[in-house]
Formats: sequence, C-alpha cells, structure tokens
Amino acid sequence: MKPYEFAGVFVPEFILDRRLQADCLYLQKMELCDLLLMNDDRWPWLILVPRIADATEIHQVNNQNQILLLQETVLVSSILAEVSGCEKINTGALGNIVRQLHVHVVGRNSGDANWPGPVWGYGERQPYEPKRQERLMNDIRKRLA
Amino acid sequence: MKPYEFAGVFVPEFILDRRLQADCLYLQKMELCDLLLMNDDRWPWLILVPRIADATEIHQVNNQNQILLLQETVLVSSILAEVSGCEKINTGALGNIVRQLHVHVVGRNSGDANWPGPVWGYGERQPYEPKRQERLMNDIRKRLA
Repeated sequence: MKPYEFAGVFVPEFILDRRLQADCLYLQKMELCDLLLMNDDRWPWLILVPRIADATEIHQVNNQNQILLLQETVLVSSILAEVSGCEKINTGALGNIVRQLHVHVVGRNSGDANWPGPVWGYGERQPYEPKRQERLMNDIRKRLA
Repeated sequence: MKPYEFAGVFVPEFILDRRLQADCLYLQKMELCDLLLMNDDRWPWLILVPRIADATEIHQVNNQNQILLLQETVLVSSILAEVSGCEKINTGALGNIVRQLHVHVVGRNSGDANWPGPVWGYGERQPYEPKRQERLMNDIRKRLA
C-alpha cells in the first residue's frame, strides 16, 4: 500500500522494518499480520507484524485490530507448539530496539539456549541449514492453509 | 473458589502461585485476572493472572477468556504508561519458571536496568520504599476505579 491522502489526512505506508527483514524469513501474509520466521535455529520462533503503519503499542491500535492480532497470535502459537513439539510457548511484544509493533511467539524446551531465561538479546543468531528451514516453513504453511 | 465436582468432573481450585505471592503486591481483582504489582522498583511492572486453575498457555484457554485477558492487558498497559510516563511498554507471557499463566506488563525507559534487553531474569529485585509503593498503588487503583 502506497501512502495517500484521505479526506485531507496523510495516510502513511506500512513498510516492514529493515532489521526484521534482515533477520527473518517471510512465511505468509495473514489477515492483519505479516508472519515471519526468525532465521535462528536455536529456537522455533515466529514473529507477527501487523500491517499498520507507525503502530508501536498494542494498547494504541484499535479494538478490531487488537482482536485480530490476538486471534492470529493464538493460531500461530498452536501451530508452532504442534509443529515443534515444544514444552512451552513464550510470547512477547517488546519493541525496545525495533519500534514497529511486532509479537514474538517462541517455542521453548528445558535446556535450550538460555533456558529458563528469555530469548531476546541472548547470544548470536544461528541461521537455519537450508533443508531444515524449508521443511519447517512447509510444515507451518501447511497448517495455516 | 474451592475445588468441587460438577456433573462428575473434578473442578480444580485456582490458587495464586507461591512465587508470585512472594515477589508481588496484590493490587486488584479484575473480571478475569488478579492484578499484581511486581515489588521491584527498577521498573514499573504489573502482572495479570487469570483466575483459571491449571492454565499455562494463552492458546489453550477459551475464546471468551482470551478476549477478557486481552482487554485487561490493554487496559492496564494504558494505565501503566500514563501513571509511569514510560517510553515503551513490554508485554510478555513466558512461564518457563512459574507455569501458572500470567502476563507481564512492564514500563521501560532508555537507560533503565538492562535496557534495551528484557527484564526477565535480570539481576536482583529491589523492593519499593513503603511510601513510593503506596503512592504508585494508589495511582493505579484510582485509574482502575
């Protein structure tokens, strides 16, 4: 969507943050969100980015979009739990570095990297080996279909 | 609510997790959740605990409770942002240590403890000085009323 004027008001364009583009793989366009896979083999890790220009806080988006974001978060949480067989889902919206509103959904297991601490800001990203990445992305897309 | 049997099914009791009881101050009973203030002066930090026995994952509670949890999270996020004047809200449901479902709502500011990293698992809790604690709790309760 290009930026445009509506009734004299400038409507800004949604552009996926550059750091998210650099660190993630594009999985699917959902009703509200772009669904990304963090390219980090240490944890199965999805990111939902609502296509709302300039959104930074969940409490500042409108009710309808809050509900859509909840529904999409819950859906991908179930799918990630099923696909990865993880012990626990961690979900969070932080945005201290990347201010564009985004919701993390991460599968965790006892003994994984930084367990039981949080994943954010821990160590170095370990990109997927191509076949493993393809299999995981296909598994997720199949369940979303 | 005491545990009871309904149509032959055992309905367990909701009891607030002991570690949450030890680390937090009780703020208010909301429609779905018990609202707690983390007794840690490093960050303004609220915790919502849905009064649903044995709940551990948001995607496993029913739709009605998911929506209530969202509404209460959004409400206390706005209140915490207003009361604390923070720069950013961090919200998360982890549960790697305390498995009872609970949602964190934390006010963050550039340069605060562990900025821009997450608050979870970082350093030692610094309990509030009594007058400061009372003022913050009153400010939050007034806005919830």
